[in-house]
Amino acid sequence: MFDFKYFTPTKVIFGKDSESKLTELIKEFGGTKVLIHYGGGSVVRSGLLKRVTDALDSAGIAYVTLGGAVPNPHLGLVYEGIELCKKEKVDFLLGLGGGSAIDSAKAIGYGVANEGDVWDFYDYKRTAKGALPLGVILTIAATGSEMSDSSVITKEDGLIKRGYSSDFGRPKFAILNPELTMTLPDYQTACGCTDIMMHTMERYFSNGGNMEITDALAEGLLRTVKKNAVILRDNPKDYDARAEVMWAGSLAHNGLTGCGSDGGDWMTHKLEHELGGLYDVAHGAGLAAIWGSWARYVFKDCLHRFKKFALNVMEVENKGTDEEIALRGIEAVEDFYRSIGMPTNLRELGVEPTEEELKLMAKKCAIGVGGAKGSAKLLKEEDMLAIYRASV
Amino acid sequence: MFDFKYFTPTKVIFGKDSESKLTELIKEFGGTKVLIHYGGGSVVRSGLLKRVTDALDSAGIAYVTLGGAVPNPHLGLVYEGIELCKKEKVDFLLGLGGGSAIDSAKAIGYGVANEGDVWDFYDYKRTAKGALPLGVILTIAATGSEMSDSSVITKEDGLIKRGYSSDFGRPKFAILNPELTMTLPDYQTACGCTDIMMHTMERYFSNGGNMEITDALAEGLLRTVKKNAVILRDNPKDYDARAEVMWAGSLAHNGLTGCGSDGGDWMTHKLEHELGGLYDVAHGAGLAAIWGSWARYVFKDCLHRFKKFALNVMEVENKGTDEEIALRGIEAVEDFYRSIGMPTNLRELGVEPTEEELKLMAKKCAIGVGGAKGSAKLLKEEDMLAIYRASV
Repeated sequence: MFDFKYFTPTKVIFGKDSESKLTELIKEFGGTKVLIHYGGGSVVRSGLLKRVTDALDSAGIAYVTLGGAVPNPHLGLVYEGIELCKKEKVDFLLGLGGGSAIDSAKAIGYGVANEGDVWDFYDYKRTAKGALPLGVILTIAATGSEMSDSSVITKEDGLIKRGYSSDFGRPKFAILNPELTMTLPDYQTACGCTDIMMHTMERYFSNGGNMEITDALAEGLLRTVKKNAVILRDNPKDYDARAEVMWAGSLAHNGLTGCGSDGGDWMTHKLEHELGGLYDVAHGAGLAAIWGSWARYVFKDCLHRFKKFALNVMEVENKGTDEEIALRGIEAVEDFYRSIGMPTNLRELGVEPTEEELKLMAKKCAIGVGGAKGSAKLLKEEDMLAIYRASV
Repeated sequence: MFDFKYFTPTKVIFGKDSESKLTELIKEFGGTKVLIHYGGGSVVRSGLLKRVTDALDSAGIAYVTLGGAVPNPHLGLVYEGIELCKKEKVDFLLGLGGGSAIDSAKAIGYGVANEGDVWDFYDYKRTAKGALPLGVILTIAATGSEMSDSSVITKEDGLIKRGYSSDFGRPKFAILNPELTMTLPDYQTACGCTDIMMHTMERYFSNGGNMEITDALAEGLLRTVKKNAVILRDNPKDYDARAEVMWAGSLAHNGLTGCGSDGGDWMTHKLEHELGGLYDVAHGAGLAAIWGSWARYVFKDCLHRFKKFALNVMEVENKGTDEEIALRGIEAVEDFYRSIGMPTNLRELGVEPTEEELKLMAKKCAIGVGGAKGSAKLLKEEDMLAIYRASV
């Protein structure tokens, strides 16, 4: 196993009505002027934004608001948020929504606390030396951004989607109320479950340093999400299932399920990032559409992990050769995706790229990862293209 | 499930030679004058204390030292530490060793940062409003104090052993190098594994609010420790097994394995605290000696949990009535304890209390928990006495 750092300072307040703790938490972390950053109209329609501003008014905490964070959040809005924070002397950020609003808020936080162009961090040119403190009220269980060090931003010019990770970006607090996720469309719930599982699967499929305890935690988390995703398909208002998935989402991406490993594979995410940059598809659905092709392309180079996953997570029969067991595990994942309405190829995702577009994505992906990447199997541009082609 | 808070801000640096990051971490958290607090001679004999003071000298960080923290650490030394910190204007505490040194350092930290008698916190009279920042280099995997909010101190007058929990007590950083635990006597290693498992088992055996994901994580952690405790019995220098157990120790008691539950049972710990206060036995061995009697006394009132534990942790055969399965699980735990040299009753622990002493422990235990306690089964003084009697 490898040495590791584990740092999850986010104070999580989990449960019904947990947003009632909001102003107390903002004050605890020194916020006096807040930028409330959110996405589309759902937090307006649900009344959450109004409840938040009412609470801030009552507590005498000043604020400004900035909506408009879209899935695959845009750099332009980040720049706008940075200017607004500077002009209004904002000292605390509140992300309200899912990964889009939170990722966008993280980027705004870097931009305010550091000189120069914030895109530099996402373009691997510099590292951030700090960030504005950020709190979160989560309304979609998916990206894990509420406890993670990472954020993903899309630069409109060239549709370049890039992630940046820094401990400065970890939220100070995260308010997780499963009830706030109950009104999500079924498709978004399923996308979220897929994303959650993928954050742990990316860490799981690695050829280096895996710890038994990390595997045991990862496998338990994955089995829990797999089971509760199906419960939510049939009963979206099941509070306990919402809670299981929501807490899994935070633990899946805060670092816990990667301790001791080489960092994981992450190529499904990288391949999806190019899809998301080019077609603006839902991130979770994009991952599901790519994963099977990735898995079949790489599994022989990481056979012991695919076999372990098949047995301990997908609970397939322990019969036949290791390859047969691994393949049954891959098939079981695809069956699971289909069972919750997720695509298992690009056509089902609603995307039909031309050969030129496939080549463009492979080229951009290779550039994005600095040439080659992957722990289950090291992938170069031609491998990426082969996986894209297989996923059509 | 119940609402919960999850807060584990401790920065963990895990792996070989991780203590080389010490001075960098002290500086990161603002330490300029350090009290190095440790226990017996082992950190002196191993050369660790010298390496630490050399590193602080090289980095230009001033320090004073205070050794002498014993298992079931004493209040008298805590008072001494508080006076020393005030006199020397110490602004950072470094706990060097196992739970004794860390718990003692936590109490010193409360005493320096709060007016009045520090024992008040352990006597449930007041709550702490802060603490000196604390860092840790762990040399024994057992108590989980390196990430937990809790500390246990024994007042010499009356041999009263009490725990106090506060988020202010959570260490700022924890340096976890499995190699530092390799020279532990086998008995202490086994005691540590027992303590680690008990921290999660206390949370697991509850009648309220259990989450599936928490159960899955807890069961995975317990299976990992169970397996690696046996590996360490046969090969104490196995680095990977040391690492599995060390990381499990931190996760077993940082709150992760209790999320969503009613807080857990904790009566085995409370019963052991009186043993530890009166006889100065090793904490882990005391827990092992009491657990079986506790489990047989309470299991029918928490049958679904004992059955689940038997199947998913002890991996007994799923055959017969629920009670039969639960009892096979309890027997399997006792078999496991014996296999790693742990006692399963007080005689094997080397303690033979008189009936009067049993009554005294039950009386003190009942007072310590405010009359009655327990989630698997609510225990009053007469129940505590019955369990003590059964454990003789």
